[in-house]
Amino acid sequence: MESPPGPVPSPDAETGRGVSRYLDTLTKPPGSLGRLEMLAVDLATMTGEAFPRVTPPGVLVFAADHGIAAEGVSAFPQAVTAQMVANFIAGGAAINVFARQIGARLEVIDVGVAADLPPRGLVDEKVRFGTANFAWEEAMHLEEAEAAMAAGRRAVQRALESGCRCLIIGEMGIANTTSSSALLAVLTREPVASLVGRGTGIDDARLAHKQAVIEAAIAARAPDPADPLGVLASLGGLEIAAMTGACLEAASRRVPLLVDGFIATVAALVACRLEPPVRDFLVFGHRSREPGHDLALAALDARPLLDLELRLGEGTGAALAFPLLEAACRMLAEMATFEAAGIAETPRA
Amino acid sequence: MESPPGPVPSPDAETGRGVSRYLDTLTKPPGSLGRLEMLAVDLATMTGEAFPRVTPPGVLVFAADHGIAAEGVSAFPQAVTAQMVANFIAGGAAINVFARQIGARLEVIDVGVAADLPPRGLVDEKVRFGTANFAWEEAMHLEEAEAAMAAGRRAVQRALESGCRCLIIGEMGIANTTSSSALLAVLTREPVASLVGRGTGIDDARLAHKQAVIEAAIAARAPDPADPLGVLASLGGLEIAAMTGACLEAASRRVPLLVDGFIATVAALVACRLEPPVRDFLVFGHRSREPGHDLALAALDARPLLDLELRLGEGTGAALAFPLLEAACRMLAEMATFEAAGIAETPRA
Repeated sequence: MESPPGPVPSPDAETGRGVSRYLDTLTKPPGSLGRLEMLAVDLATMTGEAFPRVTPPGVLVFAADHGIAAEGVSAFPQAVTAQMVANFIAGGAAINVFARQIGARLEVIDVGVAADLPPRGLVDEKVRFGTANFAWEEAMHLEEAEAAMAAGRRAVQRALESGCRCLIIGEMGIANTTSSSALLAVLTREPVASLVGRGTGIDDARLAHKQAVIEAAIAARAPDPADPLGVLASLGGLEIAAMTGACLEAASRRVPLLVDGFIATVAALVACRLEPPVRDFLVFGHRSREPGHDLALAALDARPLLDLELRLGEGTGAALAFPLLEAACRMLAEMATFEAAGIAETPRA
Repeated sequence: MESPPGPVPSPDAETGRGVSRYLDTLTKPPGSLGRLEMLAVDLATMTGEAFPRVTPPGVLVFAADHGIAAEGVSAFPQAVTAQMVANFIAGGAAINVFARQIGARLEVIDVGVAADLPPRGLVDEKVRFGTANFAWEEAMHLEEAEAAMAAGRRAVQRALESGCRCLIIGEMGIANTTSSSALLAVLTREPVASLVGRGTGIDDARLAHKQAVIEAAIAARAPDPADPLGVLASLGGLEIAAMTGACLEAASRRVPLLVDGFIATVAALVACRLEPPVRDFLVFGHRSREPGHDLALAALDARPLLDLELRLGEGTGAALAFPLLEAACRMLAEMATFEAAGIAETPRA
């Protein structure tokens, strides 16, 4: 079932240009659907299809724990990761609600939750029971990061085999804004203070502590920014590595991947550092309230579709943005041309 | 069938506060769904329902012509209004596509197209064959403005009788950014230069001409900014008056109304000048590229949900925003509470 990692193909710029010309024949002033038109061109360029389709989407939620949670960097205790996974399986979390709304196939993948979980409704790809505490040691071995990435690739393959035409990546992992902030600071060489945020909602004192923990850990681990996989292994986490693998696999299959918030965007950044052409297959769902997200988006030259001050994760912001991708595809497939509608007048300047 | 205009009720702040408290019991960090949470509170406050519903939505597209089109202020000739109405009826316009996507009941109402139109698929509420050219005379009589407003009210009543739980207003009318810009300049007492824009896409020379036409017409008509109905009659248009009536009627029925772009927002502003409590029942779909839209939104203290650089009208931006209203309602109705999910831990600061 598993395919070897394939190279990332070039985007199909010719099909994109054709769609761009076609858009100007549809019954609307040229360019008047703004970013929806750009999105249609992007989806055509990614897929190589003049009439791309994104339904049904597949939502992949990767869950894992972080040893760094022991440093008291989160508003919630580590046990909440497993409890929220149970909530995903029961269908009661925000991502369940929004995935149902968009008719998505939702899969929850355990790549490293620090607890034994009941197997039902969950894909067991546990690489280890949470990462090590990167304040004191490498978060994981290189082979473990690669195993988590492979789990992310397999999740994409399963979604595509079941007919999904677009992928949404999300995550659950108490303390994963700490890992993500550390990764982002190293990969962009920006100071931690410029990007660290409140995650699920910590106060000023805990925020200062979180920043100090990250700064000390980066100094101690001293990962090489030019080695993205090494940085990932050093600072974690397993669900981030899995999302990185998902980005690589979606791009290699020419399937649009809709990135969620801060943590998913950092995973996408790691993927783009490993394979820059991956960038051409990513769409960014929303701008999160986590301050590091702006920096991560800027590092990817990305402009997200929504700005709703979300800071939840799970893939929720991407799922909320998905109807815009569907609308872009429907616009191409269903709108009449001026000629077909019998509107002969061309716009005058 | 027709009810007399009712007073606009007060919003139900108590229900809104209850929903605000309930949101903090759902399985997410408090406030982490950002503006979606505010939207849920707003919808509850409008409807007085702790679990508001917005599906199915009703899309009302009002069409009319503008005598001012004779001044050469638009990129398209006036005949395009009737041609686009035919396109709406055939199902090929952008609003048809997006209305289908959201499962909306779509109604097209002719309140003043300057052509005889085939009756099929269209609601005939034609008040007159287009407004007069307000460069030279009043756009319409007061009674005509009131008749168009009543047509807008009736459209809302039909939508509610057929089961719609939320209304979306949009328009079609060549040259209606000219009317809207004039209305906005008068109502806000701002200079025309600060708000006039390219509409469907005119060049610099035509933009300068459009601005001069509007400035001269306002000086000649000299409507009283304190008399919103008089301003509406003086500067047009019939579809704008109909949207104003729709806002008044939706508010009087406690039904959320999702406002589209520049022209619909100006109509909403007229409604709020006539009856300030209407504001509490409006949601704003998107920020358009038309420069006057920012000013109109600011005059209503409104922050729209989307910013996609649209400038089409028809209700398209509001229809694209609608899934966010649906998501806000589903979040309330479908998410598990911490208690139900067995997640006992409360967040620590």
